[in-house]
Amino acid sequence: MSRTIEVCLTPALLNLYDISNSIVVVIDILRATSSITYGIDNGATAIIPVEHVEDCLKYADKGYLLAAERNGEVVSGYDFGNSPFSYSKEKVDGKTIVLTTTNGTKAMRMAQKTAYQVVVGSFLNLTSLCNWLKAQDKDVLLLCAGWKDKFNLEDTLFAGAVVNVLRKDFVHFDDSCVVAEDMYLMAKNDLRTYLHKSSHSHRLEQLNIEKDVQFCLKLDICTAIPVLNGDQLIALKF
Amino acid sequence: MSRTIEVCLTPALLNLYDISNSIVVVIDILRATSSITYGIDNGATAIIPVEHVEDCLKYADKGYLLAAERNGEVVSGYDFGNSPFSYSKEKVDGKTIVLTTTNGTKAMRMAQKTAYQVVVGSFLNLTSLCNWLKAQDKDVLLLCAGWKDKFNLEDTLFAGAVVNVLRKDFVHFDDSCVVAEDMYLMAKNDLRTYLHKSSHSHRLEQLNIEKDVQFCLKLDICTAIPVLNGDQLIALKF
Repeated sequence: MSRTIEVCLTPALLNLYDISNSIVVVIDILRATSSITYGIDNGATAIIPVEHVEDCLKYADKGYLLAAERNGEVVSGYDFGNSPFSYSKEKVDGKTIVLTTTNGTKAMRMAQKTAYQVVVGSFLNLTSLCNWLKAQDKDVLLLCAGWKDKFNLEDTLFAGAVVNVLRKDFVHFDDSCVVAEDMYLMAKNDLRTYLHKSSHSHRLEQLNIEKDVQFCLKLDICTAIPVLNGDQLIALKF
Repeated sequence: MSRTIEVCLTPALLNLYDISNSIVVVIDILRATSSITYGIDNGATAIIPVEHVEDCLKYADKGYLLAAERNGEVVSGYDFGNSPFSYSKEKVDGKTIVLTTTNGTKAMRMAQKTAYQVVVGSFLNLTSLCNWLKAQDKDVLLLCAGWKDKFNLEDTLFAGAVVNVLRKDFVHFDDSCVVAEDMYLMAKNDLRTYLHKSSHSHRLEQLNIEKDVQFCLKLDICTAIPVLNGDQLIALKF
């Protein structure tokens, strides 16, 4: 069983990879795939990722919870924003949520066109995700959602964490794997401090989401793996 | 004077950057921009980068030296290949050379469409290049030629070396700058060993170009800066 693992640093490079026999792990650490993981782990029936706030509206009469945020504030009339703290058991258990996430939705929809399967990863479900990936007979592509098609640190750090766990079980490492893993090994003892180097650091501070950032860097507080099924993310059965 | 420096990790991401007021430094360490730097430094009148071996043919009757390689061998009928050792003073002084380089040519031509100016960088002219960039009142984009539009280690390492030298003179660092600089700082004491991690390492060994690789990692043996002028690279006057 000879399987490859590769890291796609931004969705703009996805067309360079043949993913027809690959499980694609979509990574949007701050905060979409972290909130999605937490919500599905807390019993949400489904989470529907959409790209724009306006896209939420077509789900308005279906009794779903609507999550939308602009500039760090919940959009007026919506149930909550993108903070993972909104995806607690008491709020989401048995519910379907429509979540606005520009970079994450775009990455998922692109991957879905040709991938064997699309799942969602975050530090919150790292070990569970890696154990499951190990047990599949498929190649793996770690797809960083990035920021407006550009490379970002936090998604690449998580990709590196996955490479580090799976390196013995996969045979081929591209240069993106090498740099992602080395970044992760350099930063892993204090991920939060490393992220202060990010060009987004200032933006994050302005959004006043420090608690969210720290939460999104927690390791293994979830076991659920969200999987894309049509336009919905649901809990993978494994 | 507030100038930005950014790193574009592959030509496939170039369209995300506004380079109309930028000097673009094209980086293709193994081996195109190293050989070009060395050739111009050794007195070549001009070096014309072309994408395919076949593109050399239209220059055949102009008395230019033709450099083309396939699978590490000089193409039959051509003067030499892409090894920097072919660009010595005795071979190139006063000559015009047509050089085949797929990734490098593509990056230069793309950048040329909108950039203020396109120059060539390599470890061979690092300090000279950085001193000149410091003295210009322009933004800088470090454009890694990559490998078939994918990220590669050696070009990113060099971008990181430039960021490290210029960090005090430029105000904005994107996430690509952060990772490039950190990779460089991690690897700088033994760049060659770090490159053994590369996915291209095996390919390089098969090409039997170890001496070339070691040469391309030499620091500051040149002062020339090749600049793109039409379809020719010539020595920048500074």
